[in-house]
Amino acid sequence: MSDDVSILITGAAGFTGQQACRHFQQKGWNVTAVVRETSFVCEGIHVIQCDLTDKKAVDCLIRVEEPTYILHLAGSNSVQSSWENPVKTMEANLLSTIYLLEAVRTSSPSTKIVLVGSALQYNPELKEKPHHPYALSKTVQIQVAIHWGDLFNLDIVLAKPTNLIGPGPSSGICALITNHIVQMEREKKIDGFHIMNLAAKRDFLDVRDAVGAYEKLFLFGERSRTYDIATGKLVTIREVVGELQSLTNVPNFVIDKKVSEVEVVKPTDVSHMRNLGWMPSYSLHQSLTDTLAYFRSQNC
Amino acid sequence: MSDDVSILITGAAGFTGQQACRHFQQKGWNVTAVVRETSFVCEGIHVIQCDLTDKKAVDCLIRVEEPTYILHLAGSNSVQSSWENPVKTMEANLLSTIYLLEAVRTSSPSTKIVLVGSALQYNPELKEKPHHPYALSKTVQIQVAIHWGDLFNLDIVLAKPTNLIGPGPSSGICALITNHIVQMEREKKIDGFHIMNLAAKRDFLDVRDAVGAYEKLFLFGERSRTYDIATGKLVTIREVVGELQSLTNVPNFVIDKKVSEVEVVKPTDVSHMRNLGWMPSYSLHQSLTDTLAYFRSQNC
Repeated sequence: MSDDVSILITGAAGFTGQQACRHFQQKGWNVTAVVRETSFVCEGIHVIQCDLTDKKAVDCLIRVEEPTYILHLAGSNSVQSSWENPVKTMEANLLSTIYLLEAVRTSSPSTKIVLVGSALQYNPELKEKPHHPYALSKTVQIQVAIHWGDLFNLDIVLAKPTNLIGPGPSSGICALITNHIVQMEREKKIDGFHIMNLAAKRDFLDVRDAVGAYEKLFLFGERSRTYDIATGKLVTIREVVGELQSLTNVPNFVIDKKVSEVEVVKPTDVSHMRNLGWMPSYSLHQSLTDTLAYFRSQNC
Repeated sequence: MSDDVSILITGAAGFTGQQACRHFQQKGWNVTAVVRETSFVCEGIHVIQCDLTDKKAVDCLIRVEEPTYILHLAGSNSVQSSWENPVKTMEANLLSTIYLLEAVRTSSPSTKIVLVGSALQYNPELKEKPHHPYALSKTVQIQVAIHWGDLFNLDIVLAKPTNLIGPGPSSGICALITNHIVQMEREKKIDGFHIMNLAAKRDFLDVRDAVGAYEKLFLFGERSRTYDIATGKLVTIREVVGELQSLTNVPNFVIDKKVSEVEVVKPTDVSHMRNLGWMPSYSLHQSLTDTLAYFRSQNC
């Protein structure tokens, strides 16, 4: 890729955003990181502070930047916060997306957008219902984006990532357990981390592989199509714990509460991404090793 | 109904809003009319100016009023405007509804809300797609409202009215033809009104009957349920023209352009409203007579 490819990454300070900045910088793309707070710094990357729920600010951002690509990661991804302030979640996930798409339509219509959904969104076509305002916000966000793209002929590709793991500020289950281990290693915690049910199954994908998948979507993704970004393989939380046990001397760092039924989860069909030539490259062991190293490197 | 029943009507200055103000005032309910522009005056009715896309203003409105009922009619209902400014349409229809529902949740959770959708909304469960941003905005508005009601246990009933006709500032096809007749009677127009296809069929319901249906929904409507508000009978535009021809001496006031195919439209199932004891009471002839009288009474 040559120097004239530019990518604007929203939510650049987040778990995926930080990896995306590194990844596309290494590819030689001109990266602009859009962040809400000005404290984010990333060497060699142009950082812009912008509140994406401010329509004028978003218009200005896109008019000035006119990027080749936009990776839209920004938004609120906390289920808990969505119960506390559902309007804020709707504004952060839905309104910001509407403003972004509209700015692209009016100022930079040839920009290709990869919009990142959530494994927690539901399928209205299957009469599914959201379990929390966060799921509602992400589902409506994706739905509006697909139709906005169709109505206004915009180049939008939808990505639906599974549970992402790996080094960085994640709030997912693997990060929580790994961070707990580090706290126990430092003797700041004594009791193990409570797990709802060790038999629960998840599809865990390294965030660096997810970012590689987003790159494929910019290059080859079909407009208006939704791509599942996953390994296609389910592992139990027990297997994750087993891997982590091989990486630490701390014993009994989880306690199985068995308070939840084990949901029947089907493996994700990943053939669409395979057809684009994408395969995950990080093993679960490698991802967890790097996650542990990340938390060990953090102060307090 | 006693004096302590209060109803807040948003979009009160609109076609349905004006009839709703009269209807519920006659029923002895305490009516508060919420309007965007301050120019609206209605005798004996408390009028409040409020921009429903201003979250703080909406919070304040609901905290102060704590109405028994809310009839939410406000929004942008122009397909044309939705192409010109889709963001404004989304804000007017979706954002205002989110702010209203949230204000009810936090300040007046026992308020029962009738939220009025549109015949133009599509059904995501049937994999239908919107033909314009207006349809997208109304569909997402209703979807968010249903789920918001379920998630937060609010008493929301959804109404999906057909094409409403009758006296007042409507922009529907019957109003356009009738107004055109009056302009021809005044010799301000010479040529007839162009009709896409006289054989097209519609379900036309008098706006006063629709308002009566909304009253039934406040009293007996089941929460989270969508009620079709319609006559259940289809008539052709040709039949409407025939009725109007019996009411005016102006000849040839429409010209059939036959430019559009006649869509196959199914009659609406109105059994849910029948079960609540509602029946339309205005004949097509009466509605059109009153519509013509309305436009004849208007200056210019």
